[in-house]
Amino acid sequence: MFQLLRDGRPRTRADLAALTGQARSTIAARVDALLASGLVAPAGEASSTGGRPPATFAFNPAARVVLAVDLGATHCRMAVTELAGRVLAEHHERIAIGDGPGAILARVMELGDLLLDEAERSPDDLASVGIGLPGPVDHAAGRPINPPIMPGWDDADVPGMLSAHWHVPVLVDNDVNIMALGEHSTVLPGVRDLLFVKVATGIGSGIIMDGRIRRGAQGAAGDLGHIAVPGSQQQCRCGNLGCLEAVAGGPAIAAGLARRGLATTTSADVVALARAGDIEAGQAVREAGRHIGEVLAGCVSLLNPDVIVVGGIIADAGEQLLAGIREIVYRRSLPLATQHLRIVASRTKERAGVLGASAMAADLVLSAAAVDSFIG
Amino acid sequence: MFQLLRDGRPRTRADLAALTGQARSTIAARVDALLASGLVAPAGEASSTGGRPPATFAFNPAARVVLAVDLGATHCRMAVTELAGRVLAEHHERIAIGDGPGAILARVMELGDLLLDEAERSPDDLASVGIGLPGPVDHAAGRPINPPIMPGWDDADVPGMLSAHWHVPVLVDNDVNIMALGEHSTVLPGVRDLLFVKVATGIGSGIIMDGRIRRGAQGAAGDLGHIAVPGSQQQCRCGNLGCLEAVAGGPAIAAGLARRGLATTTSADVVALARAGDIEAGQAVREAGRHIGEVLAGCVSLLNPDVIVVGGIIADAGEQLLAGIREIVYRRSLPLATQHLRIVASRTKERAGVLGASAMAADLVLSAAAVDSFIG
Repeated sequence: MFQLLRDGRPRTRADLAALTGQARSTIAARVDALLASGLVAPAGEASSTGGRPPATFAFNPAARVVLAVDLGATHCRMAVTELAGRVLAEHHERIAIGDGPGAILARVMELGDLLLDEAERSPDDLASVGIGLPGPVDHAAGRPINPPIMPGWDDADVPGMLSAHWHVPVLVDNDVNIMALGEHSTVLPGVRDLLFVKVATGIGSGIIMDGRIRRGAQGAAGDLGHIAVPGSQQQCRCGNLGCLEAVAGGPAIAAGLARRGLATTTSADVVALARAGDIEAGQAVREAGRHIGEVLAGCVSLLNPDVIVVGGIIADAGEQLLAGIREIVYRRSLPLATQHLRIVASRTKERAGVLGASAMAADLVLSAAAVDSFIG
Repeated sequence: MFQLLRDGRPRTRADLAALTGQARSTIAARVDALLASGLVAPAGEASSTGGRPPATFAFNPAARVVLAVDLGATHCRMAVTELAGRVLAEHHERIAIGDGPGAILARVMELGDLLLDEAERSPDDLASVGIGLPGPVDHAAGRPINPPIMPGWDDADVPGMLSAHWHVPVLVDNDVNIMALGEHSTVLPGVRDLLFVKVATGIGSGIIMDGRIRRGAQGAAGDLGHIAVPGSQQQCRCGNLGCLEAVAGGPAIAAGLARRGLATTTSADVVALARAGDIEAGQAVREAGRHIGEVLAGCVSLLNPDVIVVGGIIADAGEQLLAGIREIVYRRSLPLATQHLRIVASRTKERAGVLGASAMAADLVLSAAAVDSFIG
């Protein structure tokens, strides 16, 4: 019944009985329980043709809050949000993920409590935590699986550590899946089939098909970075040749420019040069876009998305990345799959992850089973 | 409520009230309606601790039948099955799909009526029709979209033509999606993430993620045949270079062997030679498997399936095709995505499509909305 109310429209007890086919007595008891939980609140009176007008009820997104956490190799961004995603307090700072789960999660707990204070909400209002990590995650268990850039984190019990502090459910996913969710839930909620591509040090993607994130059998779906680029023989750190990441990741672009005498060592250097109008940097980003396009052309044939959203720091370099991607995808994929395809830049940018972590955490709280357990 | 009964277990009215939370009066009326429809039948009495034992009810898969149709470029296979997939009558014959929708669907109607007779069921027992076509299909509208090997079929109103004859809902999908569904529903029902690859004249795939077929935005998902094979420059009929189909499809293998003096013009010739132990044919099939493996390695990174099932006529050539695929996929994909991955031959073989068409048609009938409209 609560799922009917999630759209925010006020409804009477009679509306709910008619919509669910459940007995009036069942509805009355359930409305009382939802009112007591605060998830549903009185929403005034319905219009009436005579007699006392019936009371209406609606979802109350301010009833509880969630904590959203986006951890990268070198950044931590966190927010306390309402259940429908409205941000009440937000913070970001630089970290080194290699400091390990003990140090990093202690800082997350400290910052989380500060953000709850800033939002003027008590820890009792916290309903759940959503957290994104920069590596493969077993979503069901909430544990990283052999994450290559997260020394010390393999199989760490992230939900256990955080729920010992806050005593609420904790959901963990990889950073690209929560970025996909963030862009989808805030900018493109009506799109059923979306591919979010992150281009940064690594290259990865989050896949939404039929409206939901698809994680695959081990939660490893979307791993574009080690797909072979046709024609490339570049050595990759994974041991294979020609992987997309080794050709078009931020460090690969920076190294290519450095060989031509430019002072580029990081993705940020590449972005700064390209934005300053450096022609060689712009061309290098465009060429990286073409290589990414070679792999995305295959993804378009396989997944037939409505929209490809391109995010990650290299996307900040400007239109050259998208131009390179579009050039190859529209040439290489079949007409049926590209005739309505849009390839766009992320609009949530560096906040994609934290917004997605909020959506993931809220969805957990508002699922049918969770609401049942809430109200007993 | 009917969805609870689909598992086949007998339940009492009290069981159903407890499981659904619906009022006893609602349950009683609904059970009566389902009994009248025949979809649910009395299933004896429950054990009782005293007094008159309560009656139980269970799903009756023999209540209605569906017609399953698998059309290929040169074959037509059809079956009348019960709602849980049991085959009551089956037929196959050679056709030429280019004869067009008028001639081909007239033959389908004629054969369908004959199969209903053979199954000793009346047209009134027919609940729905499922049909697979060898080209892209707009699944929602049931119409082919610019199908390259189906002259005369573009935008044909297949559901309209068949439902004018049988007056039941008709679902249409492409042949590879119904093959995926056939293998999944009969051999691997517990697998959540499966990729079914058909290797024949064309090369295509059907994608099951989180337990359901994923069709993408225009129903074009799974189109492997025109993904570029790294290192290949072979001209494809689509206009691009290096497409998988142009390198590893049946005609490409046959042409390669013909250039070496063997009498191969069709996929069937290749299969016959390889099965007879011809070493060159076996090597050619294995090399095709390697090329398919190059593309599937990318699919494994992107989709992270539990199982890849390989079907289609070239799979009949024996173990060489799978050996070539496995060789490359296990070398090229990341360990996380391959550690539990199985790559197996189709067990439903040439019946995959017709079994899948049956599952698709039955699922339509047994969905909640459909059952509601049945029982008024």
